[in-house]
Amino acid sequence: MLVEIITIGDEILIGQIVDTNSAWMAQALNAIGVKVKQITSVSDNREHILAALNEASKRANIVLITGGLGPTKDDITKATLCDYFGGGLIFSDLQYAQVEKLFRSFGREVTEINRKQAEIPESCELIVNYNGTAPGMWFEKDNTYYMSMPGVPYEMKAMMETQVIPKIRDAFSLPVIVHRTFLTQGIGESVLSEMITDWEDALPKHMKLAYLPSPGMVRIRISAHGENEVHVSSEIEEKAIELYKHIGSYIYGEGEETLEAIILNILKKDKKTLSLAESCTGGNIAHLLTSIPGASDAFVGGAIVYTNNMKVDVLGVNPQTLSNYGVVSEEVVREMAKGAIHKFNSDFAIAVSGVAGPGADKDGNPVGSVWIAIAGKNFTDAKKFQFSTNRERNITMSSYAALNYLRKLLICS
Amino acid sequence: MLVEIITIGDEILIGQIVDTNSAWMAQALNAIGVKVKQITSVSDNREHILAALNEASKRANIVLITGGLGPTKDDITKATLCDYFGGGLIFSDLQYAQVEKLFRSFGREVTEINRKQAEIPESCELIVNYNGTAPGMWFEKDNTYYMSMPGVPYEMKAMMETQVIPKIRDAFSLPVIVHRTFLTQGIGESVLSEMITDWEDALPKHMKLAYLPSPGMVRIRISAHGENEVHVSSEIEEKAIELYKHIGSYIYGEGEETLEAIILNILKKDKKTLSLAESCTGGNIAHLLTSIPGASDAFVGGAIVYTNNMKVDVLGVNPQTLSNYGVVSEEVVREMAKGAIHKFNSDFAIAVSGVAGPGADKDGNPVGSVWIAIAGKNFTDAKKFQFSTNRERNITMSSYAALNYLRKLLICS
Repeated sequence: MLVEIITIGDEILIGQIVDTNSAWMAQALNAIGVKVKQITSVSDNREHILAALNEASKRANIVLITGGLGPTKDDITKATLCDYFGGGLIFSDLQYAQVEKLFRSFGREVTEINRKQAEIPESCELIVNYNGTAPGMWFEKDNTYYMSMPGVPYEMKAMMETQVIPKIRDAFSLPVIVHRTFLTQGIGESVLSEMITDWEDALPKHMKLAYLPSPGMVRIRISAHGENEVHVSSEIEEKAIELYKHIGSYIYGEGEETLEAIILNILKKDKKTLSLAESCTGGNIAHLLTSIPGASDAFVGGAIVYTNNMKVDVLGVNPQTLSNYGVVSEEVVREMAKGAIHKFNSDFAIAVSGVAGPGADKDGNPVGSVWIAIAGKNFTDAKKFQFSTNRERNITMSSYAALNYLRKLLICS
Repeated sequence: MLVEIITIGDEILIGQIVDTNSAWMAQALNAIGVKVKQITSVSDNREHILAALNEASKRANIVLITGGLGPTKDDITKATLCDYFGGGLIFSDLQYAQVEKLFRSFGREVTEINRKQAEIPESCELIVNYNGTAPGMWFEKDNTYYMSMPGVPYEMKAMMETQVIPKIRDAFSLPVIVHRTFLTQGIGESVLSEMITDWEDALPKHMKLAYLPSPGMVRIRISAHGENEVHVSSEIEEKAIELYKHIGSYIYGEGEETLEAIILNILKKDKKTLSLAESCTGGNIAHLLTSIPGASDAFVGGAIVYTNNMKVDVLGVNPQTLSNYGVVSEEVVREMAKGAIHKFNSDFAIAVSGVAGPGADKDGNPVGSVWIAIAGKNFTDAKKFQFSTNRERNITMSSYAALNYLRKLLICS
């Protein structure tokens, strides 16, 4: 069962938006054993859309289309779908009722331009969009299914989850693909690969290994095909046990877990709280933690101390320590962590001070040089890290290194 | 002049990474007047890569390929390029010197697996990768140029900027495309579109308008083609003046500007400082500001106050105010902002308290309901906003609404 994803929109080809929809859709499809063969991004152009539909129909059983359905004039997808599947546009009372309801909830009248959103090709089956004005449209042609969805991520996601995935499940009897992904932090792709090279070479032919690096992290994914899900899963389980023997100390979680959620869960279970004292990470650790619903059960908050004065006034760092050792130092980061424990009355605290970049700091610390401290009520631990020369990467890598540092102390305490 | 971007990697098709490279490349190419015709993502599979190269060669003059060049065993791009362009792999001393230098800088020996990274197809011209081990490879076949680059974003970006873009400029005489993008905040796409519908209808045929919505923001882009850059730019300038007349009050900037950078620049120019008191945005505003190099010139830091105690202890919010009005209230958010000014000794402060979600809060405030206050040394201003039902969107929308609220007060004061 193969899917092709076609994303429509000049905004993608001109690089003004990043296509995050395709990755999300691919994940959702993989979870039901459907493989994405290709992702194709084309412009808001009739001939180009028609050519892409035609080529996709040769490669895939299902073609999922996103984008090009906005109420504004740069969108021509709907007219082109009429050309491809035949027939004209008809007015859908069902979708219009949804448009009206949406506008009513904002206390507004339906505008003329949005009234047109309720028009759909007569050749499609309407998939109602409960979160926006653009309709979803399901087509069938020459044994291939096509689904056109809006490009707005949360509208597309709701439509996929509640309507499209169930329709695909109904339409096909699906094969078994099992993936299992191991999440590592603090070690590079090539070193990891060297550590497990013999083990990897001995994997059976129907298993595939992939390395997925991102700043500060490498995910390792085992994929296996087979007839029977229980059997394939137990084969992967055997391999997972071996993998943990080789590189277990670098693995912090699996699958869709995140370091931030893992830490919040450990803290909640132990009824402990966490606070932060961020300098070079500038709020990113707090942002990661508070992106998780329910973070407030364990995370009390913290301070972003971007100046020396803030470090002294808010966290109680000794000015003498700052002048003796410099702001990027073990002594300062330890005082920051202890200060957070004391001032914010939390059980644990993370403190980070380093040089995010782009350049070295005035004390001559090179870009990417970062001190991290973890404090509890009765201990403080500190470590120095050397990351990259890129500000964005340094902020990300420092944040994950800090979270993993805390995680390791939490599970060993 | 048309480009096709081919991204290679099962990790994209399985949705484990989002392809951010293509958007970046498209922007870089647009800046020199080169248009991306299509973006195609294919798997780590020989036949699929060959088919994609073949199809791309029919659509484009230049094919830019990223990914599939890691040192690990899931990567087969290099062998496939040999198949497509002819010839075998040869060892490049030049690329190897780079690999060695990189490993030396980490204090490590070159591993066998990384030694192989210095192998390149004999049919290519080597483009040295100064930031990683995978080589860049430039090919020419039947009047089409092909460039294969690593998928690691910062390696690809450096290679594009310093070597590939100059090579493309040299190889072709390029047409003129001018884009100008207007950044709006606090108004929806369809309302904006209604406001300028007559103006949009009257645009000349060689100009195109596009709406690019993201949470809390809509970017409006005018693009125009022509022979002469000065002439096209002045035509767009005329239209820009008209656009500002229609919707100027919603436009906060243009092009690649960001709200956070605009605010930091205003503050720096006026030698003023900013602090934050974030509750529901959980550090995201701080993260946005500190992503900008040199943020410390105007941003002193702030507090993330995720609990009532933190609001009282760190910002000095009156416990009585919290119990009388609830944590999501005008009174509390005003005291938070004033507390930040006082405790962090800044000229301005932003305070945010709201319900990020996923559910309503215990006081019955609906999800997406957010109070924002801006304080200066002698004033406090507060406003209520109602955003969406999605936690991530609410955090983003609150952050940008808060920054734009501050911006408007700064430019009017």
